[in-house]
Amino acid sequence: MSLKKETAAMIDALSNIGADPTGGMTRLLYTDSWKEAQLYVEKQLQDNGLATHFDAVGNLFGRLTGSKYPDETILSGSHIDTVVNGGTLDGQFGVAAAVLAIKYLKETYGQPLRSLEVISMAEEEGSRFPTVFWGSKNFVGEAQAEDVQAEDVQDIADFEGRPFVEEMHRQGFDFRDAKEAVRKDIKAFVEIHIEQGSVLEKEQLQIGVVNNIAGQKRYTFVLKGQANHAGTTPMGYRHDAVYGFADICKTVIDRGLALGDPLVVTFGKVEPKPNTVNVVPGEVLFTMDCRHTDGQVLDSFTAEAESLIKEIAEAHGLTVEMDLWMDERPVPMDENIVTIIEKAVKASGKNYKVMHSGAGHDSQIIAPHFPTAMLFVPSIDGISHNPAEATHIDDLTAGVEVLAAALYELAYQE
Amino acid sequence: MSLKKETAAMIDALSNIGADPTGGMTRLLYTDSWKEAQLYVEKQLQDNGLATHFDAVGNLFGRLTGSKYPDETILSGSHIDTVVNGGTLDGQFGVAAAVLAIKYLKETYGQPLRSLEVISMAEEEGSRFPTVFWGSKNFVGEAQAEDVQAEDVQDIADFEGRPFVEEMHRQGFDFRDAKEAVRKDIKAFVEIHIEQGSVLEKEQLQIGVVNNIAGQKRYTFVLKGQANHAGTTPMGYRHDAVYGFADICKTVIDRGLALGDPLVVTFGKVEPKPNTVNVVPGEVLFTMDCRHTDGQVLDSFTAEAESLIKEIAEAHGLTVEMDLWMDERPVPMDENIVTIIEKAVKASGKNYKVMHSGAGHDSQIIAPHFPTAMLFVPSIDGISHNPAEATHIDDLTAGVEVLAAALYELAYQE
Repeated sequence: MSLKKETAAMIDALSNIGADPTGGMTRLLYTDSWKEAQLYVEKQLQDNGLATHFDAVGNLFGRLTGSKYPDETILSGSHIDTVVNGGTLDGQFGVAAAVLAIKYLKETYGQPLRSLEVISMAEEEGSRFPTVFWGSKNFVGEAQAEDVQAEDVQDIADFEGRPFVEEMHRQGFDFRDAKEAVRKDIKAFVEIHIEQGSVLEKEQLQIGVVNNIAGQKRYTFVLKGQANHAGTTPMGYRHDAVYGFADICKTVIDRGLALGDPLVVTFGKVEPKPNTVNVVPGEVLFTMDCRHTDGQVLDSFTAEAESLIKEIAEAHGLTVEMDLWMDERPVPMDENIVTIIEKAVKASGKNYKVMHSGAGHDSQIIAPHFPTAMLFVPSIDGISHNPAEATHIDDLTAGVEVLAAALYELAYQE
Repeated sequence: MSLKKETAAMIDALSNIGADPTGGMTRLLYTDSWKEAQLYVEKQLQDNGLATHFDAVGNLFGRLTGSKYPDETILSGSHIDTVVNGGTLDGQFGVAAAVLAIKYLKETYGQPLRSLEVISMAEEEGSRFPTVFWGSKNFVGEAQAEDVQAEDVQDIADFEGRPFVEEMHRQGFDFRDAKEAVRKDIKAFVEIHIEQGSVLEKEQLQIGVVNNIAGQKRYTFVLKGQANHAGTTPMGYRHDAVYGFADICKTVIDRGLALGDPLVVTFGKVEPKPNTVNVVPGEVLFTMDCRHTDGQVLDSFTAEAESLIKEIAEAHGLTVEMDLWMDERPVPMDENIVTIIEKAVKASGKNYKVMHSGAGHDSQIIAPHFPTAMLFVPSIDGISHNPAEATHIDDLTAGVEVLAAALYELAYQE
């Protein structure tokens, strides 16, 4: 079977596990379909002669030991869970690609010098329980760290009230032992993922070599003015919160455009009160999502935006409340790994660019611990987290080929 | 009893009829409390020696026949219905003031030269059934006209499914006879109402003499762009509908401010889709409410706004759909009546201004048929259609005094 047919077949097989009758795929952490998918991947790994095991929380590993440097491991994979009504590629393509790339390498070149290993991570999306990166954080020993402590998930439950801990136990898993050492053998982690954006498609490129995962800050603001009758309140007597919001949104986005790529700034949620045609809005709640690959630039831009928002609110006779509730720092990928991958991609003759990721990925959790880089394949129309999520099969196959070439450089070369 | 005490007592008595346990007053057309209020007013009129009758649909009249010109009638009043959880002044203050002013005039000066009449109109608010101005439109013979034809209300029902016609019949009323002639004897109609705005309060004035009811146009627009991932979509690839809305709102309001009073323009409702922090909004539905006392200025401003909205949408790579669903023309009050009223107000020594109404009133239905003008008293904080609706009792009393003085000029002077 050609690599193209193998890729299509494995994505198809995985997509049948957790197909949602209401659309797309819903395969959430510690559900039966989630377990079934992990067991399917385990079977593929075993069929290819890899030694498999699950860690405490349910991350799956498959290992091909190296001949010369068995204690130096080159790792690849992604997450097996999906969002609710998600697509067939987000996460599982990275798992399937790692399985297939290592299968191809083993069949073509035999045993590597360094160990090659696949990881199928338990959870990344945060779609069932109010916790994210459960797989990668356990892998790197951060599940005892402040934001995903075992204590933090002790009392959480899913949207139907089923406790996290009970569901974890039901599938045969448990908390990671806090005394367990973090692995020292991982010399490289390479994750391949769909872009979930339209840059590669628009620029007609097949491969993105990711050198940075953008930092992101998310705010909620509440502008307060005074609700008034839209007919009886002259313009000069108004404290119109929507007019103030409009001024803020236009001013901040104009500043963002002037600063240029890779800065992005989005006012995604806007909720005026009372939200009625004939009442001057007395209040607007709105969010601002801002991302950049350089933490200093991100901070200086958001500092400027915060000042502008306060000044404009004041000029409109409005008060403003600010809540910065997410502040994730940019995560640069490992320069050395990026260089090796770029060399492999270039040698493959495929069109590519070095780019950043505007979305979050397991790689941002792993990168601070092990040398990490990512590969992207295009997303048709940039669509993701949606049943319409798709990538041309030739692009998926190119992704597997390039991943194999990169792993070859990392595991088979001195 | 002083006029102040009488005013407070009548407002209190009326406010007990239809007091809503969930707040404020709810006294809707053809409900039992509505009928009770009309019968209370009828009793007050009869106690003051006025001859009363209801018309077909339930408008109540009380008449004091003139000695010299009995066929020339000076009419005053307002509507008896309220909004849901409304205040204690909108509508019923104008009814109470007319009753008390005519009582005062009769007691002080005896029989007038011209007939004096009170009207307590059945309905203005449109709060129970999807029809408005049912009282005034029947009074002026417009209930057979295009927008409130008897046919139009044949099939309507309230929010609990009770048919309009059944409820009308239940209270003993029926459609106006289409052949009934419109009255020829009305020489003046004067309505006193709370301002429902804060102009008088801010300018520390007790009385507004209304010379115009502003025209108003209401639009709904839908801007369509493309929903995209807020992290993976560079600014240059976006079609951000909220950014487009912000540009439109700021630009149009800035133009409105430049044009100046009495233009008002309001973007009261804003509904982005999907309205989520991390998605570039693909769509925004928003409303525009625009009012002015000069129909030509209103039309030229909205024409400019429409053009700006289309241009800005195009510049942002958005499409725009427009729905102009309300276009009420300005209604000038009768110059002669305004002059007579202003003279009476001036003679009373009270602080006043000649002003327009930004809100709609029964007077806008009556003015095209009979010489009409309005008086305003201040609203505390401009609040109306709310249980907190209030006016200082001294201002209410001043309103009754000024209405009496105006009616004196119109009914007792040659």
